[in-house]
Amino acid sequence: MNGSAASLKILISDSDPALHAQVRALSDRIEIVTPQQVKEQAKLLEGIDAAYGGLNPSQMAQAPNLRWYQTAGAGVNGLITPEIRERADLVITNASGIHAEPITEHMFGMLLMVTRRLYEAREQQKTRQWRGGYPFGANVTLLADKTLGVLGVGAIGGHSAHVGRAFKMRVVGLRRGGASHPDVERMYTPEERLAFFAECDVVMNSLPLTGNTRGFMGKAELAALKPGAIVINTGRGATIDTDALRAALHDGHVGAALLDVTDPEPLPEDHPLWTTPNVFITPHYSGAHPAYDERAGRIFLDNLRRFLAGEPLVNIVDKQEGY
Amino acid sequence: MNGSAASLKILISDSDPALHAQVRALSDRIEIVTPQQVKEQAKLLEGIDAAYGGLNPSQMAQAPNLRWYQTAGAGVNGLITPEIRERADLVITNASGIHAEPITEHMFGMLLMVTRRLYEAREQQKTRQWRGGYPFGANVTLLADKTLGVLGVGAIGGHSAHVGRAFKMRVVGLRRGGASHPDVERMYTPEERLAFFAECDVVMNSLPLTGNTRGFMGKAELAALKPGAIVINTGRGATIDTDALRAALHDGHVGAALLDVTDPEPLPEDHPLWTTPNVFITPHYSGAHPAYDERAGRIFLDNLRRFLAGEPLVNIVDKQEGY
Repeated sequence: MNGSAASLKILISDSDPALHAQVRALSDRIEIVTPQQVKEQAKLLEGIDAAYGGLNPSQMAQAPNLRWYQTAGAGVNGLITPEIRERADLVITNASGIHAEPITEHMFGMLLMVTRRLYEAREQQKTRQWRGGYPFGANVTLLADKTLGVLGVGAIGGHSAHVGRAFKMRVVGLRRGGASHPDVERMYTPEERLAFFAECDVVMNSLPLTGNTRGFMGKAELAALKPGAIVINTGRGATIDTDALRAALHDGHVGAALLDVTDPEPLPEDHPLWTTPNVFITPHYSGAHPAYDERAGRIFLDNLRRFLAGEPLVNIVDKQEGY
Repeated sequence: MNGSAASLKILISDSDPALHAQVRALSDRIEIVTPQQVKEQAKLLEGIDAAYGGLNPSQMAQAPNLRWYQTAGAGVNGLITPEIRERADLVITNASGIHAEPITEHMFGMLLMVTRRLYEAREQQKTRQWRGGYPFGANVTLLADKTLGVLGVGAIGGHSAHVGRAFKMRVVGLRRGGASHPDVERMYTPEERLAFFAECDVVMNSLPLTGNTRGFMGKAELAALKPGAIVINTGRGATIDTDALRAALHDGHVGAALLDVTDPEPLPEDHPLWTTPNVFITPHYSGAHPAYDERAGRIFLDNLRRFLAGEPLVNIVDKQEGY
């Protein structure tokens, strides 16, 4: 049961047989453990060397030999406890990068649904009345020549900046360190956040949730925005102060909030955010796309090959920074 | 009343005083005529040299001295009668170009509303239920890596191609003559239309309505599309055979039709297109944006300056081709 000294026990949460076959093809030293087996026999965790999904922090605490954990998602804010942070021999990698395209498409879709009044048109269609012009023609706005502020310029923000530029938007960005980006006309640092927000007609927030980003957009930041600005969040709900956002929507200073993430999540049925004026909520699926599992699996396989060869892994999470 | 020999009578349909002042500043020879004056005294038409909007073909027939007519829109299919076509001394210019940004934004908005299931999410929000995942995560599709077919590569199609490429779509195009375009990987001619449609996951149709484009997308063209393809039309409704489109939507070969223009228009309350599966109708406002009048006025002013200086006008409509 313990395998040979050279065997490698890997927990794989994805049950796709094709993925398992690809894993086995990489090395005959590998022994695949399934979540079902762990559920039946928790003691199996003790022998696990690596895992692709399927573990929470308390299970990781029971896996002292775990050296590498690959997540299938991007955000790891629920995963990195103080204990995990201190395990210097445990590397965590994520599937960052495969979210750039779906999330950028989701953000521009939500934005254009509002600026082109598409939801109202869809509602009017039910009445089978044509009624061109008002409320449409007079109430649409144009992305071109507006300023897009990309909050967090990683893989997602970089792609959003690129698409924004194609739509002829002016693009500004904010990221730690303030390093430039080819699609960002002006980059700000977190310390310059008020000047950044003062430029924005539209904010696309894809910040991870860390100690530094919790409540990043609070009362002062929202007040700094241009009147009528549109706030989009696909990062983590708690990077925005929900009460301050609701107040800014009620007084009209923020024109609309398009939220794929909320704080808390899932949003309880009686939460006032559901019915705050000009709030549009999609239930945390902006990163989804049909080939998600296949593309996440490809990152895992690439990292597994590297792990076996003793090469550096890709998509390593900085456990101190939290993303 | 007839003015000096050198005076120039221009009918201006836009009543904006700032525009009138800008017109007068260009030359003191100009005498502005308003639609109200023409309404009260039709005989005024006889003396008109140029007009910015406000004339239908029968009024033009009463204006034998009319040498230049600037429209405020792009499509001129209702304007170019056989008689107008034969008046070699009458130049017609349009406001083509100012529609590129709003219409491209409208088309991608309609497209992403469907691919990201945003309408369904908006409906679900009313129930105050979070319900992530199904029907969302499993049912979204990605624009990236899909093939966008741009049907009619003018100002609108060119901008759509550019944005499509930024979204990492593969872009093919079809236009008369088949001249290349920097954002189009492969350009087809009208004769190669079936090969063009066979490539398309998404078609963005911004064709004008001419003798050559009426019914351009008929049964054979729709059948050539990839299964589940999305058809978007912001050109003129009659460039698509509505009955053939409805049949292709009913049998599922066409995945969705996103229509800002219909045939007929306005669409009567009892027309079956309103309730054909996967049809989304916006009542012909894709070209609208807040600064429309100001930007159309700018084209008129530029052309007026050219007209006064005897220079070639911009945006001249080919009366034989009809756009």
